[in-house]
Amino acid sequence: MKRVIQSAINLSTSESSLVEKIVKEISNISGLKVADCSSDSDHNRSVVTLLGGEESLERAVLKIVEIAAQEIDISRHRGEHPRVGAVDVIPFTPWQGVDMEDCKKLAWKVGKEIAEEFSVPVYFYGEAALREEHRDLSHIRRGGYELLKEEIDKVPERYPDVGPAKVHPMLGAVVIGARGPLVAFNVNLKTQDLEVAKKIARKLRGETGGLSYVKAIGVNLKSKDMVQVSMNLLDFRKSTIYQTFELVKLEAKRWGVEVTGGEIIGLVPLEALVDIASFYLGIPELSIGQVLEYHLSDY
Amino acid sequence: MKRVIQSAINLSTSESSLVEKIVKEISNISGLKVADCSSDSDHNRSVVTLLGGEESLERAVLKIVEIAAQEIDISRHRGEHPRVGAVDVIPFTPWQGVDMEDCKKLAWKVGKEIAEEFSVPVYFYGEAALREEHRDLSHIRRGGYELLKEEIDKVPERYPDVGPAKVHPMLGAVVIGARGPLVAFNVNLKTQDLEVAKKIARKLRGETGGLSYVKAIGVNLKSKDMVQVSMNLLDFRKSTIYQTFELVKLEAKRWGVEVTGGEIIGLVPLEALVDIASFYLGIPELSIGQVLEYHLSDY
Repeated sequence: MKRVIQSAINLSTSESSLVEKIVKEISNISGLKVADCSSDSDHNRSVVTLLGGEESLERAVLKIVEIAAQEIDISRHRGEHPRVGAVDVIPFTPWQGVDMEDCKKLAWKVGKEIAEEFSVPVYFYGEAALREEHRDLSHIRRGGYELLKEEIDKVPERYPDVGPAKVHPMLGAVVIGARGPLVAFNVNLKTQDLEVAKKIARKLRGETGGLSYVKAIGVNLKSKDMVQVSMNLLDFRKSTIYQTFELVKLEAKRWGVEVTGGEIIGLVPLEALVDIASFYLGIPELSIGQVLEYHLSDY
Repeated sequence: MKRVIQSAINLSTSESSLVEKIVKEISNISGLKVADCSSDSDHNRSVVTLLGGEESLERAVLKIVEIAAQEIDISRHRGEHPRVGAVDVIPFTPWQGVDMEDCKKLAWKVGKEIAEEFSVPVYFYGEAALREEHRDLSHIRRGGYELLKEEIDKVPERYPDVGPAKVHPMLGAVVIGARGPLVAFNVNLKTQDLEVAKKIARKLRGETGGLSYVKAIGVNLKSKDMVQVSMNLLDFRKSTIYQTFELVKLEAKRWGVEVTGGEIIGLVPLEALVDIASFYLGIPELSIGQVLEYHLSDY
């Protein structure tokens, strides 16, 4: 069985020509597959989802950082989503023939290479965190690039794991790590009142009493005259997509605000889709084995 | 690319030991995969879903008919679902590297072999129909085995396409053909009033003004003290799963009857699941390319 690791790389740009350039530059790397690209102008972010083995992902990540170091100036970046760098987050997720240990090793290896080659501060997060306080991405990104720049050489908790304690002029910082499959799920609200999105996010977020494995923030969608509850489901089996959606709808009702719809950024595991169909169609026993394509993949 | 045809074989038994025996007997056929088995005691039917190339499916089907000729006596069969034979329906559906023509040819070849080897009347249906009036499965099964037995040598429309114009003592008749992917979707209602299920089925059925590609009947679920709207979605892209589910719910409301849930018999294409998630989560742009496993299958 081929070794497959998934990497949903978060870039602090929504410029489609730049994303296209990046995809073109890495598309000839053998064993690599660009599975999805998704850009959002309000977030001013893009997610490029790659599938491949260790070697091809290492080459792809280094190439992406190289291009970003020339093309994305984090100090001039504006956007609704917290970020500390041009190549903001590089997660590795085990998928097939590999385990979490493999992904941690890959994160450490590639992170070290990036730090040395580009003189950029690098943080290891998630399962690859070297310090407990770096396990949680939102802690590393607290206050964004702007605050990190101030604190990086002053507050011990914010010292990088490798690389200089000084933000890179273009790249800022890089966060790299290993984690299980994450679902990036956003729900849009038909109001311009950001406070409503923030209040609902607080109700959803595990940290503030919501669903344990949900990270949630309120975000302004200026281009759409709307606001958004932007969520990461860190364990979609335990805190599910339908739960977050239904809870956002219930909270929105309380504020008399209409939910216009959801969006999934990047890829979603088949198991999560089966769970959604099972819930909404009332089929508790629906299983992944009933999906035709599931059988073709190992045919 | 490997040639893959899907065949969801409908058997007039719900005896699990017999279904297990059948699966065991065909499990060593090279190139064949038993993707799913599903039995229902109220319908007194089982669906065994196979994936494979022409040769392996031909061998599997002949073996199944051979076992059924010894083990399933259609003349003593009781069940809620219309049927004319022990091996009631054998559909072939193109999936990968094959087209509908290949499936039609396979149906004709295997149908002829079954008729000759077992002296059983065989009907070709769906895309493999030789006569327009046999295209529709429900026309062939009208009145079930009992009526077919009476009419098979008297009513020209009911003459078989191959084999004798006389039902087989055990097998009854066999219907074999080619069709696109079908979704077998049932919705259960918390009432014992079969008339309600029948009325709702009439509202759903394309023939009587409902959704064009939906076949629907009302069925008694004695073991559950419930009734069921049992549906076949002949084109799940045009008449979708969520449409049928929501329409059944709306009709049920009118009768003050609770919908307890749905069930999917056999396999469901990934595209149908994406459609369900897209509808219920309000994500119009959700695509099959966002499902991780979709990329692994051709990786």
